[in-house]
Amino acid sequence: MNVTIDRIRAAEKLIAGEVLRTPTVPSRSLSQRAGAEVVVKLESLQHTGSFKPRGALVKLSTLDSGARKAGVVAASAGNHAQGVAFHAQRLGIPATIFMPEGTPFNKVARTEALGATVRVEGQGLAEAGERAQRLAKDEGMTYVHPYDDDAIISGQGTVALEMLADFPALDVLVVPIGGGGLISGMAIAAKAMKPDIEIVGVQADLYPSMAKALKGEAQTAGAGQTIAEGIAVKVPGGRTKPVVEALVSDVLLVDETAIECAVQIYLETQRLVVEGAGATTLAALLGNPDRFRGRKVGLVVSGGNMDSRILASILMRGLAREGRLARLRIEIDDRPGVLAKVAGLIGQSGGNIVEVTHQRMFYDVPVKEADLDVVVETMDADHVREVIGKLEEGGFTVRLLRNVSEGG
Amino acid sequence: MNVTIDRIRAAEKLIAGEVLRTPTVPSRSLSQRAGAEVVVKLESLQHTGSFKPRGALVKLSTLDSGARKAGVVAASAGNHAQGVAFHAQRLGIPATIFMPEGTPFNKVARTEALGATVRVEGQGLAEAGERAQRLAKDEGMTYVHPYDDDAIISGQGTVALEMLADFPALDVLVVPIGGGGLISGMAIAAKAMKPDIEIVGVQADLYPSMAKALKGEAQTAGAGQTIAEGIAVKVPGGRTKPVVEALVSDVLLVDETAIECAVQIYLETQRLVVEGAGATTLAALLGNPDRFRGRKVGLVVSGGNMDSRILASILMRGLAREGRLARLRIEIDDRPGVLAKVAGLIGQSGGNIVEVTHQRMFYDVPVKEADLDVVVETMDADHVREVIGKLEEGGFTVRLLRNVSEGG
Repeated sequence: MNVTIDRIRAAEKLIAGEVLRTPTVPSRSLSQRAGAEVVVKLESLQHTGSFKPRGALVKLSTLDSGARKAGVVAASAGNHAQGVAFHAQRLGIPATIFMPEGTPFNKVARTEALGATVRVEGQGLAEAGERAQRLAKDEGMTYVHPYDDDAIISGQGTVALEMLADFPALDVLVVPIGGGGLISGMAIAAKAMKPDIEIVGVQADLYPSMAKALKGEAQTAGAGQTIAEGIAVKVPGGRTKPVVEALVSDVLLVDETAIECAVQIYLETQRLVVEGAGATTLAALLGNPDRFRGRKVGLVVSGGNMDSRILASILMRGLAREGRLARLRIEIDDRPGVLAKVAGLIGQSGGNIVEVTHQRMFYDVPVKEADLDVVVETMDADHVREVIGKLEEGGFTVRLLRNVSEGG
Repeated sequence: MNVTIDRIRAAEKLIAGEVLRTPTVPSRSLSQRAGAEVVVKLESLQHTGSFKPRGALVKLSTLDSGARKAGVVAASAGNHAQGVAFHAQRLGIPATIFMPEGTPFNKVARTEALGATVRVEGQGLAEAGERAQRLAKDEGMTYVHPYDDDAIISGQGTVALEMLADFPALDVLVVPIGGGGLISGMAIAAKAMKPDIEIVGVQADLYPSMAKALKGEAQTAGAGQTIAEGIAVKVPGGRTKPVVEALVSDVLLVDETAIECAVQIYLETQRLVVEGAGATTLAALLGNPDRFRGRKVGLVVSGGNMDSRILASILMRGLAREGRLARLRIEIDDRPGVLAKVAGLIGQSGGNIVEVTHQRMFYDVPVKEADLDVVVETMDADHVREVIGKLEEGGFTVRLLRNVSEGG
């Protein structure tokens, strides 16, 4: 491996003042949940909302004045784009970012707001990447790879220097893996500082490319929509894979439900917005309690760039999952006074009605009957059953709809 | 004033290790918005999600073993309850918390989860407080006042010690005011360390009790529902008011829209969940740009305990406000193929349809016509106008509904 602890320490000096030295914070509630001593490294607070500006700045700093004038090109649907654009703008380097078709508007807008020229082209990230490399070649510009580059790896490695400076006693670092740039840099730094520290990687089980590569299985792996789109990478890096093989003890896989649940735990107990990729490390911790019990665990929250609409859905689904919000479908005679009776029974059982919809069409009910959908705020799952019991005592047929957003 | 810097320094030693020394983080995006150098003190990351455990621990530590055995009583709808319950449980002190009727379920549940006995009694906080004091007197228990107590004030003052230790160059601290415990402690500490620092208080304009008291106006002020319920206090403290008079240069008022907007900015740019009271300081900064321009400003994010349902609404309203989500009501002939035509036009204009509702009833339209409500994801307000223009060119009559959640 060409990246060394000295190079990462040099990167640390280089980025000082221009990259936020993010806090590493002990979490009492996560520690209790996990039965471990948990600290979280908050790269979600970093400029542009992820760790990516670290590597981007180190890479841009390697360019001579001619290369700076010619400009840089990158391909990314998200955090890498913003990391490159942010420092390119600051250094006066023209930046062109290729984003695959279908990239959410707000990611395009955020990248443009950082002064980059955005070209929405290519089916998927791989094709956008090819176009970016072609443009770089044709125009004599520098292509900035998101992870397979020693400068990038050196920059990302500074995350480990900061975590171990703040908490030297850590036993294990848990790090998300997409292409492997972050974990490679961090592993090189951490193992050099503290040879007995353990480095554990995490991937979304829909995109287990590095995990498979390490087992000698297919080098290409991954398909489908994941909430952890920041690490939805199909092919591990040629430079990162040997580092991971040498220094990382395990790559754990987490499923979509576990990731969503981890995002929700960060929101509710840590008051942090964490994007799917950043929440995978908590999902891995909670999904493998024996693996981490009693140990001093450092989780990397790699970013916080979660779409607001998805965030709102996760909040509502979380409330439904915990029985704090329930959608009930109640069969009623469609005549005056019935709603008052239903509302009265729900009120008596301590439920708080937040939404009412009458459904008179589309259902397989006689014309004089109707379905009433009521969203009720409740204390927990037991309370939901109490509310339903009360309505049934009152003579109503009630069905609990599985999902609060499951409409009529 | 009985609270001194020495007492606050003693409190700092006392709470070390049991209260999180929260990070103070510079914010590039808030600095750009405000034209100032902004750092934020993240008490939202504190155990229980607010600064309240600081004062609670100092107060509980003053109790002798007899008083500890007898237990403590407090009244609070939120953060004070959790702060007292958290340390009482840890120290093995029985805690009874009075919460006013109508307190959201999750606040009751969170306080009970910390081992306290919760009694939901009293119309409003004042009445719950009277009941708590009566129980304390009748049963020989210690009443823990939320702010008008020297031990509480000393504990809250530690926030300023930490901020100035991390950022000694700060010119001004901006602090939310409810009863005044936090700002009193902070002002005493900060002014002793750095006499030329300025302390600015912020209140919700629905509850301007301290601001009015300082002007010699009615001591009781405040009514209505505020998103900043953590500082919805009608009467300033007898101990805190003279401190504020002596050391605080200004009490700024912020309205509900400004607070909601500040909550949204924290979510989107800092990836932090900040409760209304905690966001008031950012609202005051952005609402008074000339007052703070070019200065080194420390904002206290006093807590992050925001209800998930309200948070989800704020996210959706934010998207609507920025034109990133628009609800259009389109008059259509109710016949096959029309939806396809509408969807085609919206797609051509680059809008992404996320929700469709047909409305055939309740509207003042002929029976063969209907209204189609479409929620469209858009880039910004200009883009919304483009989408509407495209539909109008296609012969449809379109109305932009003011609010995304404004249903049929």
